[in-house]
Amino acid sequence: MSDVKKVVLAYSGGLDTSVIVKWLQETYSCEVVTFTADIGQGEEVEPARTKAEALGVKEIYIEDLREEFVRDYVYPMFRANTIYEGEYLLGTSIARPLIARRLIEIANETGADAISHGATGKGNDQVRFELGAYALKPGVKVIAPWREWDLTSREKLMAYCEQHDIPVDFSKSKKKSPYSMDANLLHISYEGGILEDPWAEAEEDMWRWSVSPEAAPDQPTYVELTYERGDIVALDGKAMMPHEVLETLNKLGGDNGIGRLDIVENRYVGMKSRGCYETPGGTIMLKAHRAIESITLDREEAHLKDELMPKYAKVIYNGYWWSPERRMLQAAIDETQKNVSGVVRIKLYKGSASVVGRKSEQSLFDESIATFEDDAGAYDQKDAEGFIKLNALRLRIAAGKGRKQD
Amino acid sequence: MSDVKKVVLAYSGGLDTSVIVKWLQETYSCEVVTFTADIGQGEEVEPARTKAEALGVKEIYIEDLREEFVRDYVYPMFRANTIYEGEYLLGTSIARPLIARRLIEIANETGADAISHGATGKGNDQVRFELGAYALKPGVKVIAPWREWDLTSREKLMAYCEQHDIPVDFSKSKKKSPYSMDANLLHISYEGGILEDPWAEAEEDMWRWSVSPEAAPDQPTYVELTYERGDIVALDGKAMMPHEVLETLNKLGGDNGIGRLDIVENRYVGMKSRGCYETPGGTIMLKAHRAIESITLDREEAHLKDELMPKYAKVIYNGYWWSPERRMLQAAIDETQKNVSGVVRIKLYKGSASVVGRKSEQSLFDESIATFEDDAGAYDQKDAEGFIKLNALRLRIAAGKGRKQD
Amino acid sequence: MSDVKKVVLAYSGGLDTSVIVKWLQETYSCEVVTFTADIGQGEEVEPARTKAEALGVKEIYIEDLREEFVRDYVYPMFRANTIYEGEYLLGTSIARPLIARRLIEIANETGADAISHGATGKGNDQVRFELGAYALKPGVKVIAPWREWDLTSREKLMAYCEQHDIPVDFSKSKKKSPYSMDANLLHISYEGGILEDPWAEAEEDMWRWSVSPEAAPDQPTYVELTYERGDIVALDGKAMMPHEVLETLNKLGGDNGIGRLDIVENRYVGMKSRGCYETPGGTIMLKAHRAIESITLDREEAHLKDELMPKYAKVIYNGYWWSPERRMLQAAIDETQKNVSGVVRIKLYKGSASVVGRKSEQSLFDESIATFEDDAGAYDQKDAEGFIKLNALRLRIAAGKGRKQD
Amino acid sequence: MSDVKKVVLAYSGGLDTSVIVKWLQETYSCEVVTFTADIGQGEEVEPARTKAEALGVKEIYIEDLREEFVRDYVYPMFRANTIYEGEYLLGTSIARPLIARRLIEIANETGADAISHGATGKGNDQVRFELGAYALKPGVKVIAPWREWDLTSREKLMAYCEQHDIPVDFSKSKKKSPYSMDANLLHISYEGGILEDPWAEAEEDMWRWSVSPEAAPDQPTYVELTYERGDIVALDGKAMMPHEVLETLNKLGGDNGIGRLDIVENRYVGMKSRGCYETPGGTIMLKAHRAIESITLDREEAHLKDELMPKYAKVIYNGYWWSPERRMLQAAIDETQKNVSGVVRIKLYKGSASVVGRKSEQSLFDESIATFEDDAGAYDQKDAEGFIKLNALRLRIAAGKGRKQD
Repeated sequence: MSDVKKVVLAYSGGLDTSVIVKWLQETYSCEVVTFTADIGQGEEVEPARTKAEALGVKEIYIEDLREEFVRDYVYPMFRANTIYEGEYLLGTSIARPLIARRLIEIANETGADAISHGATGKGNDQVRFELGAYALKPGVKVIAPWREWDLTSREKLMAYCEQHDIPVDFSKSKKKSPYSMDANLLHISYEGGILEDPWAEAEEDMWRWSVSPEAAPDQPTYVELTYERGDIVALDGKAMMPHEVLETLNKLGGDNGIGRLDIVENRYVGMKSRGCYETPGGTIMLKAHRAIESITLDREEAHLKDELMPKYAKVIYNGYWWSPERRMLQAAIDETQKNVSGVVRIKLYKGSASVVGRKSEQSLFDESIATFEDDAGAYDQKDAEGFIKLNALRLRIAAGKGRKQD
Repeated sequence: MSDVKKVVLAYSGGLDTSVIVKWLQETYSCEVVTFTADIGQGEEVEPARTKAEALGVKEIYIEDLREEFVRDYVYPMFRANTIYEGEYLLGTSIARPLIARRLIEIANETGADAISHGATGKGNDQVRFELGAYALKPGVKVIAPWREWDLTSREKLMAYCEQHDIPVDFSKSKKKSPYSMDANLLHISYEGGILEDPWAEAEEDMWRWSVSPEAAPDQPTYVELTYERGDIVALDGKAMMPHEVLETLNKLGGDNGIGRLDIVENRYVGMKSRGCYETPGGTIMLKAHRAIESITLDREEAHLKDELMPKYAKVIYNGYWWSPERRMLQAAIDETQKNVSGVVRIKLYKGSASVVGRKSEQSLFDESIATFEDDAGAYDQKDAEGFIKLNALRLRIAAGKGRKQD
Repeated sequence: MSDVKKVVLAYSGGLDTSVIVKWLQETYSCEVVTFTADIGQGEEVEPARTKAEALGVKEIYIEDLREEFVRDYVYPMFRANTIYEGEYLLGTSIARPLIARRLIEIANETGADAISHGATGKGNDQVRFELGAYALKPGVKVIAPWREWDLTSREKLMAYCEQHDIPVDFSKSKKKSPYSMDANLLHISYEGGILEDPWAEAEEDMWRWSVSPEAAPDQPTYVELTYERGDIVALDGKAMMPHEVLETLNKLGGDNGIGRLDIVENRYVGMKSRGCYETPGGTIMLKAHRAIESITLDREEAHLKDELMPKYAKVIYNGYWWSPERRMLQAAIDETQKNVSGVVRIKLYKGSASVVGRKSEQSLFDESIATFEDDAGAYDQKDAEGFIKLNALRLRIAAGKGRKQD
Repeated sequence: MSDVKKVVLAYSGGLDTSVIVKWLQETYSCEVVTFTADIGQGEEVEPARTKAEALGVKEIYIEDLREEFVRDYVYPMFRANTIYEGEYLLGTSIARPLIARRLIEIANETGADAISHGATGKGNDQVRFELGAYALKPGVKVIAPWREWDLTSREKLMAYCEQHDIPVDFSKSKKKSPYSMDANLLHISYEGGILEDPWAEAEEDMWRWSVSPEAAPDQPTYVELTYERGDIVALDGKAMMPHEVLETLNKLGGDNGIGRLDIVENRYVGMKSRGCYETPGGTIMLKAHRAIESITLDREEAHLKDELMPKYAKVIYNGYWWSPERRMLQAAIDETQKNVSGVVRIKLYKGSASVVGRKSEQSLFDESIATFEDDAGAYDQKDAEGFIKLNALRLRIAAGKGRKQD
């Protein structure tokens, strides 16, 4: 363990990663660089500076990455209408590649030869951090304390703090949640506690970002999202930066009880886990993006996107953002978004986001053809006969040769 | 047109198909057999008998197919979590193959050489009826009056009625809706009218099966769905036949404002069309089926199902239920459902159906492994290192050879 | 039929399309513009000029499109290792979009309102020409004489020639083949005649581009293909234009009996047809491209390409080159070719093209890791245990819960 | 290491696995059960008995599994036209699940708590053995000596033999090949040695099962394969058991220089490796199976099979034969094979296997429709117009709205 000289740690400023700072210094006799990012988790990041200083850290990186996070990760992912296992909007998964990249960039800047993180050995996040790190700096050393140390219970962790003068009031600043949580601009997640029983309903006071549908306003809220080339550029006609868009939609969605999700998902490491998620803005964005695509995408490219989406979601969930297969899929997805521009009108009401209108100068909806009224010859109904006849030909030949079709 | 001797017509008892009876008799000088089915559209089918008799029809089939419809079509389709274009639950599409099959069976019973239907030349339904018919009886003659005749406006249709003594009060029995509608146990659909403008919000009084979320009860309703091998066999512990399940869920869902949908979809014939749908029971079923699968399916079979689903949905939407590719996909899907048994608990509230619990004796959720607490060695966190290292190997080699990963 | 003023015809200079010139002039009372292209079919195109002039054509286009054909159509297609139904290299399919585009461009230049072609109503080529034409000029009128006229036998055709003074020696210039053939730089195809019996072996004298394997030299020929970004840029170290590459490989392949194929394929119009093909150069290119990819592509992008390939092949076979879905797939494919550079060594011998070596500065083959000898720690075999354990976890949990795995 | 009581070892009788017997006995102080199977590797298995006895083994299993191997593994795999990465016929991969299953069954019969194998930590075979073992007996202990011991060079291995009185003439019985080889009825593989340079051509004397194309007979050989439901049941009209079929085709293929392959492939553990393979019978089987499918499968099921095949190949290559996803895919594949019956005629000549005829009572090839001659109305060419028009509609609408299509 003596060959590590300097390690960059993804540092939240919380108790666990503070212990990791000390443990790294001790175990590896190495210098620790801390990296703390604001990706919209809703907590101040600046306090991490004094905490890190108190732990003897000399190189401290504290950064506001909200804009980059939404623009370069969340937005590209939403172009694909990405959902994992039919439900999960990948709120945690999509933040990891950004953190991994900054860890490696800081390692390069500071001459560090290792990176470290506070993810456990059971979860997906270790995989996402480390695949990203290895992809971007193949010779990097990765230290995952939770897989190495013997601080396997809260008691041992507290004992370690006492031995090493780590101020435990770190964790007293707010009431310890019974849940393991992760938050960023896209979502907040809850795991553990009573959720470990998939039959148990989540308690109302667990949810932090949204009111319950029951408590939401009795009047619906309407919002109009303006798209350009697949991305939202304005809300209710007001131009916004990507992270402002997401913050605004989070507020609107949360106020209307939108975006709660309770699922059992399949982790990449092989187990099932129960998770609850609040993704107010993302839930609206998914609905709206599909709606703008519904009038601007060609049918076959839309269907091909639908077929590729589960693969793309799996690539991101499993931690392969920085991979050739993700870039390959992204190239296909982005190719389709050139004309995905226009406006979608959404109604928010007590837990539901419903599309009520969509319009676009790029619209492929052709009222003159689709109409139930007289179409003045825009569409010749007789064409349908040949269309059906030839599409049926293979089935007729088979049936004629005695093949059973039912 | 003289070579048709007898034609079986899908007859609703309404004005349009009554005109078709007469038009077929006249144009083809052939005998017409009518077939009217109760598939849960919510209207009496028995009155079709006297109407058909009045038109001189001698062979009249009136059947209650609700059970068969749900058991043999709706249920198999829901095993795949089927959605077309991310939104549409295929309520109309899934009823057509049943009608096509009965038309052909009746043609065989009555010695008819042709079938006929009242679908227009612009829509998907003509394709679904006819592909089914050709697949099941390759030499059958199909007559699609809307593609042949010149009764292209309501005025001409009325004039035809007057000329031919078809009682127009047929259509006066209820106020003519401004929408083109189709209903069965799975859904009711609306097209046309103001919906032809995709930006226009549907009017509240259009919806027939559900109250508005605003008008739904202020207290949530809970329901428990019991699954056996992928299909619902009981609600709240009470065993039910498939069609009773769907009827009950329709009632529960409709009462709570659940299952409204407003989309622009891509028709097989090449145009986009705007449709609104109410699928109260189906919306609940989709959510619940995913939830029971989330604890009983293996990860990889679940993901493979997700990848195949868009294809399967397209096959059904486009009218290929009676095809080798549908059977092939169904074989794969059904293979996965052997262990999809257990109970899902759903909360219904003002437009939303939320999963709040799921349990199964076949559950693959392993709390002893998934836990955040001490797992007593059930999972060795050190395994994760090798797992990540080898999964990263190809990325590291590439990066080591200078390939850019971002 | 009076509304067509000027029509651009894909004119081969042969008997059939000469009849079409006359028939169009007569039937539509319109001006005919002929377009004749050299795409490597192995026949002079210049004689088409005097023939067209003799038929009264005033606007005559004769063009050498060989370079464009290989560079913009054949090469992009081969980047995907494209094969239809496991065997067919799409030699005919890939030439049609080029012809369609030139037809439309010429229509635009000459102010023509229609295009026409000599493909029959049973085949794929009509679809490919017309989908391309409609995609590039949506209002164009398409005239497909074989679907319209009554010249349905050779006798009627000859009678028409006599009536209209079309010199029949057109067809006497070479012995009439019993097969329907199509040729371009990529392949020559044979259909009809005794091939209509799928059990009958093709006669040796049918094949025109290749010697039989039996007649090929007794010594193997070696050739080295140099790739840059997925495309061949040199043979045996000599830089060449794309069409020179293909011409040279056709010669080498043909001399060594390579590239014959005898299949039954599924046409887009719904029937099966038997076809024989000679694709000497293309057969070598497919082998070689896979080989250069085998050392330069990442595993997962290679696998994703393999999964997408059948779709891409179907898109091209069915005539959708000019479509959003083709562009979407091409974007994904092209994204992977950036590093597909290097050299492949192929052995040609009596019908077989075998890869015997491949090298690249972009190679991801890492001998230091792959070696069976001591790898000096480049790969830690112990990592494999964790890799296997976590990959097995879902299977173990299922088996532990009593799921049968066999 | 003291908790293992009895271990079942996949024992070849060769030097390496003999060392493993001793090493297991010593290291784990446990009883060793040996299992040696004839799967067509071409070596006597009975001599393994005395060797095992000499090592003190009391429970010795020696079995002829050739029939089971071909019937239950090779045949089902060939129903899918399975190829990994466009080239590899999975000869090694498909034998591993059978060995894994027998290892586990013998463990159950003998009360063993562990299994062991001689595969290294770099390859795919360890993964295939162990995934199978864990899937079939989740609590089994797996011992992979090559990942544990320090006998990392041939010198150390020999020293170990001397120390432990293991007769080294074990390995002298035949000249030590410079290649790492694996053989069974489906193929023989070569890795290592000069093959570690992907540019180096394999030496002629490496190949063991086939003559070189140059040395093959100057006259072609013809063979007729009779299929029933996707499997070969007779050759040249003579009924045969599955393993007889494969043995016969291996002989025919090998005599005609067929089935050599030289590739660089992507291993599941993350590296590329160069391998040469001889698969004479399998190469013929693949060609022939596609040919019988070409006349008996519906187009869309054939295309869907082609799309699923790469997934299925990857599942097998990676070692997931005993998995829900393999069963799911197999269900889909097997569903399509009901009518895959008939005869294929193949010409074998100097390295090539060419299909020259195919016939079937289940044939969907309809000469009366496909013919270039007068079809007496079997196919109405006018249908093609509507078919093309509606297929083009979405492209025309897009072009009409100004979308660029090129």
